Amino acid sequence: MRTIFVIGIGTGNPGHMTADGIAALCNADVVFVPTKGEEKARLAAVRRQIIARYGAKPRLVEFALPVRDETVTDYAERVSDWHEAIAGQYRHMIAAMGEGETGALLVWGDPGLYDSTLRILERVAAMGGRFTLRVLPGITAIQALTAAFAIPLNTVGNPVHITTGRLLSRGFPEGADSVVVMLDGRKAYAALDAKDLYIYWAAYVGMDEEILIEGPLAETRDAITAARDAARARHGWVMDIYLLRKTV
Amino acid sequence: MRTIFVIGIGTGNPGHMTADGIAALCNADVVFVPTKGEEKARLAAVRRQIIARYGAKPRLVEFALPVRDETVTDYAERVSDWHEAIAGQYRHMIAAMGEGETGALLVWGDPGLYDSTLRILERVAAMGGRFTLRVLPGITAIQALTAAFAIPLNTVGNPVHITTGRLLSRGFPEGADSVVVMLDGRKAYAALDAKDLYIYWAAYVGMDEEILIEGPLAETRDAITAARDAARARHGWVMDIYLLRKTV
Repeated sequence: MRTIFVIGIGTGNPGHMTADGIAALCNADVVFVPTKGEEKARLAAVRRQIIARYGAKPRLVEFALPVRDETVTDYAERVSDWHEAIAGQYRHMIAAMGEGETGALLVWGDPGLYDSTLRILERVAAMGGRFTLRVLPGITAIQALTAAFAIPLNTVGNPVHITTGRLLSRGFPEGADSVVVMLDGRKAYAALDAKDLYIYWAAYVGMDEEILIEGPLAETRDAITAARDAARARHGWVMDIYLLRKTV
Repeated sequence: MRTIFVIGIGTGNPGHMTADGIAALCNADVVFVPTKGEEKARLAAVRRQIIARYGAKPRLVEFALPVRDETVTDYAERVSDWHEAIAGQYRHMIAAMGEGETGALLVWGDPGLYDSTLRILERVAAMGGRFTLRVLPGITAIQALTAAFAIPLNTVGNPVHITTGRLLSRGFPEGADSVVVMLDGRKAYAALDAKDLYIYWAAYVGMDEEILIEGPLAETRDAITAARDAARARHGWVMDIYLLRKTV
């Protein structure tokens, strides 16, 4: 039986790797490294850095991740088609492993949070791909964000809402007091009713390039947009996350 | 200047420690270990195990954590009084450190999620306690839960709601599709309208004692209650977490 480790690697800081994640990485015979599509090329560099830092000696199997077909207008259908294409590729790569070998996929952050690897591996199994699956949790951008600001995520006894820029652009979640926003390429914070909102914003959180800005949303959002645009121009990509807190 | 590291240690599995967390632990001159109150005694054993496993040689300063005064009827006031008492104790312990020394507090899970250490250290600073603070993120029970079941936390493109048993007992959050429940000593899942809800439940998640149960809530909640009660009787304590997913 082949085994697949899905290892959460944290947010680009090799120091985010857990002891269990490092052990799994060092026990893997092969690591699958996506090299194209969806900003994967820069992430491939981080993955190689982690492999080198912890002295792992797996075979590296590079593959070009399929890209989403933007001509498919329905969001769910577009994502589903894309996952199916990746699943076909994974199935092929797993079948190419030696009998009894272990392969690893290194996932940004944690495999459970806004990542599709587990969902895609479920499709591989449904296609008839046979393997044992083990998931190693990793530090998410949420924890890297609150650690960078040295703040609690929740207020005392209250809930936390995790959402996306796409959903936030419909408005601040009703009744929420702490809202984490991920995947906000559209700068949804800029169009919000900023009254009584405080923002903790971070780009490249946990990495050397980390940028942190906090303050009342009304007073800081222009500075955030300027910092975000400048960072994107400088690095060619930007990954950011923020926490919005009701102040009343 | 004295430095305080607040290190997230994960959920009781020493393999959850991150490389940065281990390095911080090994660089600490002193580790503060609470030994009384709030099930701290058993957690002290996990902390000592982590210190030993990673070869750290800090001075251990044990202290009896104050307990909440349950005669204070207002919840916010009770928690505030309790935090103030702990802050006074932390201030004293930090002042007793040598000039330029580094102290560490080892926090279950991640310091940002349903933990009051950072909030209490803010009070220490407000009292005039002077120190540099650094937070090392840790694996939360949420990531340990989804890793154990090898499932994504969110459904495609949708939000996640993190809440407590106390709040869930008021009803399933309106419009939510994935709800994580922590700190549920009252078994709020048992009294929910179970229609169209699927549960992923774990106790001692990530530890050797781990128990996992999943299924439609209506069909599994009695088994969960039985397992929870039996585990609590056997170990003297139980820590559990669950994810509720809308199935329609």
